[in-house]
Amino acid sequence: MTGLNELPIRDDLRGREPYGALQLDVPYALNTNENPYPPSERLVKALGEAVAEVAGTLNRYPDRDAVALREDLATFLNTDTPGAGLTGRQVWAANGSNEIIQQILQAFGGPGRCALGFEPSYAMHPMITHVTNTRWIDAHRDADFGLEPERAVKVVQEHRPDVVFLTSPNNPTGTALPLEAIEAVLKVAPGMVVVDEAYGEFRRAETPSALTLLPGNPRLIVTRTMSKAFAMAGTRLGYLAADPAVIDALLLVRLPYHLSAVTQAVARTAVAHGEELLGSVAALRAERDALVAWLRAEGFTVADSDANFVLFGTFPDRRRVWQDLLDRGVLIREVGPPEWLRVSVGTPEEMAAFRTALKESL
Amino acid sequence: MTGLNELPIRDDLRGREPYGALQLDVPYALNTNENPYPPSERLVKALGEAVAEVAGTLNRYPDRDAVALREDLATFLNTDTPGAGLTGRQVWAANGSNEIIQQILQAFGGPGRCALGFEPSYAMHPMITHVTNTRWIDAHRDADFGLEPERAVKVVQEHRPDVVFLTSPNNPTGTALPLEAIEAVLKVAPGMVVVDEAYGEFRRAETPSALTLLPGNPRLIVTRTMSKAFAMAGTRLGYLAADPAVIDALLLVRLPYHLSAVTQAVARTAVAHGEELLGSVAALRAERDALVAWLRAEGFTVADSDANFVLFGTFPDRRRVWQDLLDRGVLIREVGPPEWLRVSVGTPEEMAAFRTALKESL
Repeated sequence: MTGLNELPIRDDLRGREPYGALQLDVPYALNTNENPYPPSERLVKALGEAVAEVAGTLNRYPDRDAVALREDLATFLNTDTPGAGLTGRQVWAANGSNEIIQQILQAFGGPGRCALGFEPSYAMHPMITHVTNTRWIDAHRDADFGLEPERAVKVVQEHRPDVVFLTSPNNPTGTALPLEAIEAVLKVAPGMVVVDEAYGEFRRAETPSALTLLPGNPRLIVTRTMSKAFAMAGTRLGYLAADPAVIDALLLVRLPYHLSAVTQAVARTAVAHGEELLGSVAALRAERDALVAWLRAEGFTVADSDANFVLFGTFPDRRRVWQDLLDRGVLIREVGPPEWLRVSVGTPEEMAAFRTALKESL
Repeated sequence: MTGLNELPIRDDLRGREPYGALQLDVPYALNTNENPYPPSERLVKALGEAVAEVAGTLNRYPDRDAVALREDLATFLNTDTPGAGLTGRQVWAANGSNEIIQQILQAFGGPGRCALGFEPSYAMHPMITHVTNTRWIDAHRDADFGLEPERAVKVVQEHRPDVVFLTSPNNPTGTALPLEAIEAVLKVAPGMVVVDEAYGEFRRAETPSALTLLPGNPRLIVTRTMSKAFAMAGTRLGYLAADPAVIDALLLVRLPYHLSAVTQAVARTAVAHGEELLGSVAALRAERDALVAWLRAEGFTVADSDANFVLFGTFPDRRRVWQDLLDRGVLIREVGPPEWLRVSVGTPEEMAAFRTALKESL
C-alpha cells in the first residue's frame, strides 16, 4: 500500500489533516450549525418537480452564468435588506460559500499576496487562503471577540492585505460587527474587503447588513449562504453581492459550468419558497436567546450571539465536557478559543437534550 | 461604473477573457460535445423521485466523502473496463472533471512547480494550471496529433514536470493514445500522470483504457466525466480512479462538502440507469464513423476519432466557414489548430443539417 507521503504532494501540505467536522450518526447533531427544520412536504414535492423539469435536458450543459438564479437571489437580498437595490448583475453564486471564497482568493490573492482575518473566525478563511498560495495574517479579535475599529484600521494600514475577511456575525463566537468597524476598514483597505454574512439572517433586529454599504464601495464583497437560515445545507449554494466588476474578475477564475442545472433549479425553488424556509428564523432566534439566558443563569460565560449557535465556557478541560455530551448522544463542536465550546441552536427538543446532558456532565 | 482594471486583481489575470464556448439558442448546437440524446421519461421520473427522497433532509449537510456514489462509480468502471477491479476507495468525485483537475493541481502543482501537456488538447488543462499558480509547459502533439512515445519520454525527462496531462481520446483532435505511450511516460515521470479520459467510453473497440494500468502505478490518475457518454452534462459530475493515497492527498485541498446531496442523488440515479444512458454510445460511434467517411469523401482532411466529435479541415479562413454554418443554424467550434474546425456528433437529423450547411457554405 502506498502512503500519502510517498506521493509528490506540495511540501506545505505534508503532515496536514483534512478539514471537517465529525459526521456521526447521533440523536442530537448540534455541531455544524445546520437549521434543524427540514423542508415541508409541499416543498419536498416542489423540489422533486423542479428537478424532473430540468432532468429532460440534463444531457445539455447548464447556463454557465446562472442568470435566472442570480436574479432570484438579488430579489431575495432586496427583501432581506430593504434599500439594497441589487440586480442579478451584482450577485454571483457557487457551490457553497467555500467555493465563493476560493474564487475571490484565486482572483485577488495568490503568490506574493496576503489575506488578513481576525481569529477566532471561520476556519475555512485561512485554509482556502493557504490552498490558493496566499499568505495568511491573523490579526486576532479583541478579548471580548469584538473588533475595535481603531485597532482594525491600524492593523490593515500596517499589513496592507490584498483581501480582508470580516465575519459578521462571527463564527464561532456569534458576535456581529457594527457597520462602523466595516466602514473604517473599507476606508483604509488597499484590497478587497469580504464581509462573510453566512449567518446574516439570524442577526438581531438592531444589527444592519453590510449590503447597505455596497453603493460606492466597489472593493466590498458580501457573502451569504443557503446552508444556514435557508435550511439548505445539502444543496451547497453560496452567493455574494458586489459591484459587477468584481463578478467580471471572478469570471476569469471560475471553473466553466461550475453550477449544475440541478443545483440552479433546486436553489431557485428554495428561494421561491423563502417564506417557508426562513420561517424558522424567528423561532431559532428566540431559542438562541433563551439558551444564552439559561447558560448565563447556570453560571457559564457566554458570547453574545447574532447567529444560530452559541459559544460558551470556560472549561479547563473542554475535551472532557465535549466527550461527556457525546456519550449522552449530543454532538457539539470543540472549536474556537481553548476552554470554549460551541453548540448549534436546534429545536426545543434538541435544546432540552443539550441542557440535560450538560447538567449531567458537570 | 467601476471597470475590472480598477480592481486589485492578480496581475497575471489582467487583460484575460473568461473561458467558455458560446451558449447560443440555435437549432443545431454541435459545439460542446454534448450527448444529443436526452434522458427517457422513465429516467426523468426516477431523477425527480431521487431528489424528492433526499429533499426531506436538505437542511443537513451532505455526506462529505460521497461514499455511496464513489462505490457506484467504481462498479461502473469495473463494467466499462473488465479487470479494473476498483473499489470506492480508489474513486473520487467532484463538480465536473474541471474541479477534479483543479484539486489535482492544488495538491500536486502550485508555485515553483510545473505541469506539462501536449497541445492542442483540452483548453482547461493550461487554464486551471494557470489559476493554481502552476507553470505550464506545452510540449505539443506530433503533426498527426499523435504522441510518439520516444519523444514524449524525452520531453518528460527534460522538464521533469510535477504533473503530466495525457488526454485520451484527445480533445479537440479525437485521437486516443496507445497504452505504450502512457506506460512510457509513467516509467520516467517524476510526478503525477493524469490520463484525461473524458471521452473514454467512445473509444474504438481495440483501444484499451488506462484504467488497466492502475495496479502498481500509484502516481497514475485516470479522470472521467458523466458529461459526455453518460449524457449528464447538466449534472456536473466528474470523477477519477487512482491509488487511495492520491485521494488522501485530494482530501487536503478539496472544499468541505463540495458535492451536494442533490448531485450525489442525481449521479447515483444516473449510474443506476447507466444501461439506458450509455445505450446511445454505439449509435454515436456509428454516426461518428459515418461522418468521418463522408468528410473524407468530400475531400476534407479528418483526424481519426475515438470520441464523439470530429476535427476536420483545412480552411484558410475557418472563421468564415464557422460563421456560414452558424448563419444556417449550425453552431460548431472554432478550436484547435488554425485552419481546423470541430463538430460534435449529434443525432442523424443534426448530422444531416451539418452536412447540408457545410456543402452550402463551400
